[in-house]
Amino acid sequence: GNAASGNTTLLSRLAFLNEADKLKSIYRASKLCDGSRHENSAEHSWHIMLYAWVLAEHAEQPVDLNRVLMMLLLHDLVEIDAGDTPIHGKISAEDLAALEASEDAAATRIFGLLPAEQGTAFLQIWREFEAAESEDARFAKAIDRVQPLTLNLANGGGSWVEYNVSMAQLNERVGRKVENGAPAVWAYMKPIVQKWFQANVH
Amino acid sequence: GNAASGNTTLLSRLAFLNEADKLKSIYRASKLCDGSRHENSAEHSWHIMLYAWVLAEHAEQPVDLNRVLMMLLLHDLVEIDAGDTPIHGKISAEDLAALEASEDAAATRIFGLLPAEQGTAFLQIWREFEAAESEDARFAKAIDRVQPLTLNLANGGGSWVEYNVSMAQLNERVGRKVENGAPAVWAYMKPIVQKWFQANVH
Ligand SMILES: [Ca+2]
Repeated sequence: GNAASGNTTLLSRLAFLNEADKLKSIYRASKLCDGSRHENSAEHSWHIMLYAWVLAEHAEQPVDLNRVLMMLLLHDLVEIDAGDTPIHGKISAEDLAALEASEDAAATRIFGLLPAEQGTAFLQIWREFEAAESEDARFAKAIDRVQPLTLNLANGGGSWVEYNVSMAQLNERVGRKVENGAPAVWAYMKPIVQKWFQANVH
Repeated sequence: GNAASGNTTLLSRLAFLNEADKLKSIYRASKLCDGSRHENSAEHSWHIMLYAWVLAEHAEQPVDLNRVLMMLLLHDLVEIDAGDTPIHGKISAEDLAALEASEDAAATRIFGLLPAEQGTAFLQIWREFEAAESEDARFAKAIDRVQPLTLNLANGGGSWVEYNVSMAQLNERVGRKVENGAPAVWAYMKPIVQKWFQANVH
């Protein structure tokens, strides 16, 4: 009956939401602005949703903010199985392929906890983000890269110091992606970041 | 010129986003599902946005999910100045009025960091959430109350144990609000919660 199938639906949904709670225990390379501890992927996801909303006007092309927010809400859930991969860590092409396969399996498992139709919709949004081809995904990817810049600047270098990053590496792994989705933001941040590297990296 | 005013805009926006980072250091009464530590208000906000999306179909009236997500994204920022107020703590009418004034001052200060037009828009959305009158706000408020139920059930009682809560109090402070915005979710959760209280509260 309706009540029984409604209960099955709610049971699946709440199981997914409880599973998602684990993202609060996945820690990233970057630290909070005050440097007191590493940031976890759940609070990071919250923070970059706020970034996306506040900075939406600076997107390279007009974006559908609601879809961007949904992408960012979901984007890191795969880390529950696959872990966080620091962008400044060294990774071989082979390991990268293995990581992508592991993240895709994670997405299938985690979104698979939801009722089928909803799980499929979530999986599609996550895959669109990963593909980084649509306007919305390019902006979402840019935003995901901007926030660690401001954290690192606030806390004395953070993951740049820990991973011994050069300005050339930062340009390649971060700058290009921010420029791709939010060029005005990179134009603003680049000289600030360069100044930090000139003063601190020798 | 345009570049200079664009820079002022970005400077304000990034100052707001750095200020928002402090929400990651505001800890709530509830603990993670695994009971390992208290939850902070930033990761809580992320989690309940996921709740809102996953459970949107169970809203009492059809809601605009995008506006609900925006409300939940912003709703706890005032805690940076005003702190988190546990829903099961005892509070006098006088202290409640003082808290509301302090939260309103916090909203004015924090959203006031943004460029004026954007700050005003954010403040309006926050006030709509607080007023809990629109369909979107009633659903958002219901969702904010549902999530601690599932955390407490998962970790052995959590804030119910800490605050010595009775089922009657839970009905009053939580049940009524969940029922108001998402009655099907309360219909599902109530017997599960009642069973926990019957087994654990004497
Ligand atoms: Ca709160």
